[in-house]
Amino acid sequence: MKLPDTTDTIAAQATPPGAGAIAVIRLSGPAAFSIAAAFLSPPPARPAHRTAYLLAAKDGARLVDRVIALFFRGPASYTGQDTVEISCHGSPYIIRTILNVAIKHGARVAGPGEFTLRAFLNGKLDLAQAEAVGELIASSSAGAHRAAITQTEGAVSREVRDIRSELVALLAEIEARLDDSYEEIPALEKRAFARRAAGSRKKTAALASGFEAGRGIRDGMKVVITGAPNSGKSSLLNSLLGYDRALVSREAGTTRDTLEAELDIDGFSVRFIDTAGLNARPATELERAGIRRAAAALAGADTVLLVKDASIKETASDLRAEKETSASAAGAELIRVFNKADLPARRRAAAGAETVSCRTGKGLARLRARLVARQKRVFAEGAQAVVTSARHFEALSEASGELSSLETVMRRNAPELELAAEHLRGALGALAAILGETAPEEVLAGIFSNFCVGK
Amino acid sequence: MKLPDTTDTIAAQATPPGAGAIAVIRLSGPAAFSIAAAFLSPPPARPAHRTAYLLAAKDGARLVDRVIALFFRGPASYTGQDTVEISCHGSPYIIRTILNVAIKHGARVAGPGEFTLRAFLNGKLDLAQAEAVGELIASSSAGAHRAAITQTEGAVSREVRDIRSELVALLAEIEARLDDSYEEIPALEKRAFARRAAGSRKKTAALASGFEAGRGIRDGMKVVITGAPNSGKSSLLNSLLGYDRALVSREAGTTRDTLEAELDIDGFSVRFIDTAGLNARPATELERAGIRRAAAALAGADTVLLVKDASIKETASDLRAEKETSASAAGAELIRVFNKADLPARRRAAAGAETVSCRTGKGLARLRARLVARQKRVFAEGAQAVVTSARHFEALSEASGELSSLETVMRRNAPELELAAEHLRGALGALAAILGETAPEEVLAGIFSNFCVGK
Repeated sequence: MKLPDTTDTIAAQATPPGAGAIAVIRLSGPAAFSIAAAFLSPPPARPAHRTAYLLAAKDGARLVDRVIALFFRGPASYTGQDTVEISCHGSPYIIRTILNVAIKHGARVAGPGEFTLRAFLNGKLDLAQAEAVGELIASSSAGAHRAAITQTEGAVSREVRDIRSELVALLAEIEARLDDSYEEIPALEKRAFARRAAGSRKKTAALASGFEAGRGIRDGMKVVITGAPNSGKSSLLNSLLGYDRALVSREAGTTRDTLEAELDIDGFSVRFIDTAGLNARPATELERAGIRRAAAALAGADTVLLVKDASIKETASDLRAEKETSASAAGAELIRVFNKADLPARRRAAAGAETVSCRTGKGLARLRARLVARQKRVFAEGAQAVVTSARHFEALSEASGELSSLETVMRRNAPELELAAEHLRGALGALAAILGETAPEEVLAGIFSNFCVGK
Repeated sequence: MKLPDTTDTIAAQATPPGAGAIAVIRLSGPAAFSIAAAFLSPPPARPAHRTAYLLAAKDGARLVDRVIALFFRGPASYTGQDTVEISCHGSPYIIRTILNVAIKHGARVAGPGEFTLRAFLNGKLDLAQAEAVGELIASSSAGAHRAAITQTEGAVSREVRDIRSELVALLAEIEARLDDSYEEIPALEKRAFARRAAGSRKKTAALASGFEAGRGIRDGMKVVITGAPNSGKSSLLNSLLGYDRALVSREAGTTRDTLEAELDIDGFSVRFIDTAGLNARPATELERAGIRRAAAALAGADTVLLVKDASIKETASDLRAEKETSASAAGAELIRVFNKADLPARRRAAAGAETVSCRTGKGLARLRARLVARQKRVFAEGAQAVVTSARHFEALSEASGELSSLETVMRRNAPELELAAEHLRGALGALAAILGETAPEEVLAGIFSNFCVGK
């Protein structure tokens, strides 16, 4: 995959498809002004920066629409190049015609993310900021939005740059000694050096460790509801949602296929997956198929709600549910939910479990809050920078690994400085990739191809 | 239905729903600038007209997005009132949040068409122009677009105003005589007066007569394909479209239900409706049901293509098709199509009929051109003003009727001038309603409620 040319002028519709009151068409590149002047009438001789003109968009002599054209002179524009934003009536016919006219006069249809790619290549945004633009557009909960906007504002980049400048200082210390053939500089203060390296490693690891919660914040957390048949899984789903999403009956095995529903809890998006009951002795092939699907859902869970009917003694199916959960959802957070608290209890809730009643609503608010506690903590801990990108997580993990190796090297009696420098350079390279300073073309092309056209 | 308040400040998303690179939120009304300043930071002290500012949109202390805010000072704006257009990232969450913040600071959610209603009430557009804005957005063919844009540019309004000023002159002549109790003014030149009245009536009627073609231009023409079973109706549909839309087989009665497909012919939109063959002796209940649906389709046709298999002699089903067409589609244009011209002919094409072969393509281009000939003529005759609105058609018909009555009055030996004046006032009232000068609130409310929100 190669990066597209950035010396020509690109054009695209920047607003969503479909008919609407208005649509915006963007032109950006060296010829943006002259192309716009070729079909906008009367062509403003020297359009003022950031100024809107009411002009006639024409296809030859034919009037296509009266539009508002807004001119941005590079580098003071989103892309850093001359840019024209044309607001026309949101008719698909008009949009198509104006784009065609722009192309006839020398523009090229923009590919996905090409405007933001140009912004990055022209130094308007670093790569981490540019990546967050796509997440900002996709953000559908307050949490996802907050993670994305702090990243576009450069919070992740700032933390990465802070770590990097510490590492550069460490590398300078080592390189000074390596260059010092006359041994004029005092020997490295090994203890202090190791302490500073460990500090950087911890910061890097802390940033990386936010990723799991960050991914949950961005994409919504997957919460799988499982348990024995008739333990009240679907009732719990309905009660958590506050409306009847799932069909509920007294009959065991009412839920057969998995069933999904989303809920916004305090600005965090949670996706619930209700599953068929885990029957220790499934009676039919249909029931067995439902259980297989439940196991598959468990494998993708961030959190598992293991529901138990507290009004009866533990059953074989309860045991099966425990076993299935620990087998299929080993990495997920496990919350045991003792249901039917309105009935006389026949068993005691385990430590750390939640006790709820779907009938009276008891314990539901507490359970909802617990589901997003981790995400909340990420923001509450003042973590302005939340890592939501797998690419950043991998780079931070790599940097953190290199710094661990550096510590190992430094712990030796006679540390090999050449090797220490090598690990520092590895960590610096990984951090630079986050900012896009050393990202190869294919990585860039891959990142921007996930954007929508017009951005 | 009452008109909404126009003294408060309204807000709405002006771009289509869904995620996109950017979205535009519009604020318009007396408080538009101060509301925008309440959540845009830093608030521009006295924003320059038509100038864009890169500002932070905030919800309290929290950053929602960095936006481009474009300020238009009334009356030099679309609505005639102070207007702010805010371009933000096209995330549904961001759009929702900014709208909520604007409302928190005193804006109200705009109803459908409220921005354009304000433009009309503030004299930025007359009613005929304002109505065409909705059609402009909906236009999906070059013809529909041309009809709508000429109307927004005021072409219909200009013709109506021309007729009106002639009628006002006629009315002045009559009223001068009615006021002339001392008989100082020479008597009315009856012959010349009648000639001028007839001229105005013809212009009015000519404008109204464009409505049928105009409606076809705006909505697309409905062309129903009918004929005996196996005459090649579905083959004709596929050949006209240029791709296989309908299932075709040698078996009679392959098409059972009606089937629709659209085609753009020279910029005019044509909607084809293929129907079940009209069998003189339907064999099954299913076939009878298909024939009933075919008859229903014929009733809504603008044009009927009555297809005949020229390679066989006329059949009882051909006769039934002729009868059904004249019964169900009396008002529609009828084009007889003699099909299968590649085979030896067993009957002669009727006068005015088209001869085609779906196999060789013979005659298809001619038939396509004929379908939009009427629409083309409307534009070719220099008719800049195409009446596409039923409301305008009715008003023009009413005015034309009043002018006919006026001519009748004037033809009498001693014309009652009072009565003549009455008919002229009736015609003037109808014309004024087109421009919106005398339109009652309910009519206005009805017109604008068909618009999309944000326009």
